[in-house]
Amino acid sequence: MRETFHGELDQIGRTLVDMSEAVAVAMCDATSALLDADLTVAERVISQDVEVDRLRDDLELRAFDLLARQQPVAVDLRKVITSLKAVADLERMGDLALHVAKVARMRYPACAVPDDVRGTIAEMGEVALSIVNKTKQVLEGQDVHLAEQLEREDDAMDALHRRLFSHLLSEDWAHGIEPAIDITLIGRYYERYADHAVSVARQTIYLVTGEPAPMSQAIASGATETALGV
Amino acid sequence: MRETFHGELDQIGRTLVDMSEAVAVAMCDATSALLDADLTVAERVISQDVEVDRLRDDLELRAFDLLARQQPVAVDLRKVITSLKAVADLERMGDLALHVAKVARMRYPACAVPDDVRGTIAEMGEVALSIVNKTKQVLEGQDVHLAEQLEREDDAMDALHRRLFSHLLSEDWAHGIEPAIDITLIGRYYERYADHAVSVARQTIYLVTGEPAPMSQAIASGATETALGV
Repeated sequence: MRETFHGELDQIGRTLVDMSEAVAVAMCDATSALLDADLTVAERVISQDVEVDRLRDDLELRAFDLLARQQPVAVDLRKVITSLKAVADLERMGDLALHVAKVARMRYPACAVPDDVRGTIAEMGEVALSIVNKTKQVLEGQDVHLAEQLEREDDAMDALHRRLFSHLLSEDWAHGIEPAIDITLIGRYYERYADHAVSVARQTIYLVTGEPAPMSQAIASGATETALGV
Repeated sequence: MRETFHGELDQIGRTLVDMSEAVAVAMCDATSALLDADLTVAERVISQDVEVDRLRDDLELRAFDLLARQQPVAVDLRKVITSLKAVADLERMGDLALHVAKVARMRYPACAVPDDVRGTIAEMGEVALSIVNKTKQVLEGQDVHLAEQLEREDDAMDALHRRLFSHLLSEDWAHGIEPAIDITLIGRYYERYADHAVSVARQTIYLVTGEPAPMSQAIASGATETALGV
């Protein structure tokens, strides 16, 4: 009975790893679609989000079934509940990659990203990928030692977000309102994507150590004050 | 044993109702703070968000405890799991009200909202309140007949969001980039707040009827394409 339980729990854990990989690919592709004004890649990201949703639905059903049949307690129960939280974050990360791809599609054949913020957006894409890859590592091996690195990278994302606003508000911004709106929303999508990835990692670390990871509460709450307050 | 269980489940339900009321007050106050550039009210919204977080933490602990001690199955298990999803949405709604209040605080003593979008923002605030009050009614009485009204009001929120972008992109917009960034983010906060409220109502309706509420998937995914694509 317990063996079955742990086998099924492992299966849920593998689905979380698969989802983290799927949303990493989605954001990587969405960033390419955005920077290269590539409609084909944008459409692929948009159409493949249903697969992330399907993995979420499937995981939720299996977790529910596991709770009903096996009635776990203590740390086993905590693992199932944490999986349900993590799957909600991962599904949302898929949506945020989809939103980035939709901006690329909406502005096609033009590029939504003016040259002067291209470097910053590219860096946000890289940091987002680095964070989600660490989250995947945490999910795979429950490596609690990545907490500090994740915190540093989340700080880097916030700094990039502030830099993005500096560009928008500089006297050199010559692109008017519409690109400013696009860039404001795109910046928010990357920032929220990173927040959710860090949240998954934190929950998983908490599961292992029993102590909240040493990351500021601001990460979890998605505070944008600093980003706005440039 | 079952009596205790249902008593404790009722208590969890009451906490969800309390949270829906708290985040309704928070968004009502945040809208006032924003439109009237009222620093005192903004600070109140910001400082009171910890109370919503406390209610969330408390509910999660009690739900976990209930699962561990009573090991519910079938519809009882579904109720506890749905409560855990709803509490995450409600906590996020509190964060979004907090974000609106922080924009008000950041621009104080100026008003963050230029006159030409004041009416639209005020209406978004009203629709957000109307939606969260219906969500509260659904949580209180599990009234499944509010689904269509909620869908209509969510459509109204999307229409207001599109109108907001029309203002920003019109030739009459004379306020430059910074207010455009503020209004873009504020619009997103109201739209997401409504999305989460509708999500809580949908989950609760699904619990009662066993069928997904007749609302478009776009609501749940927080699609912004129409809002962007003005």
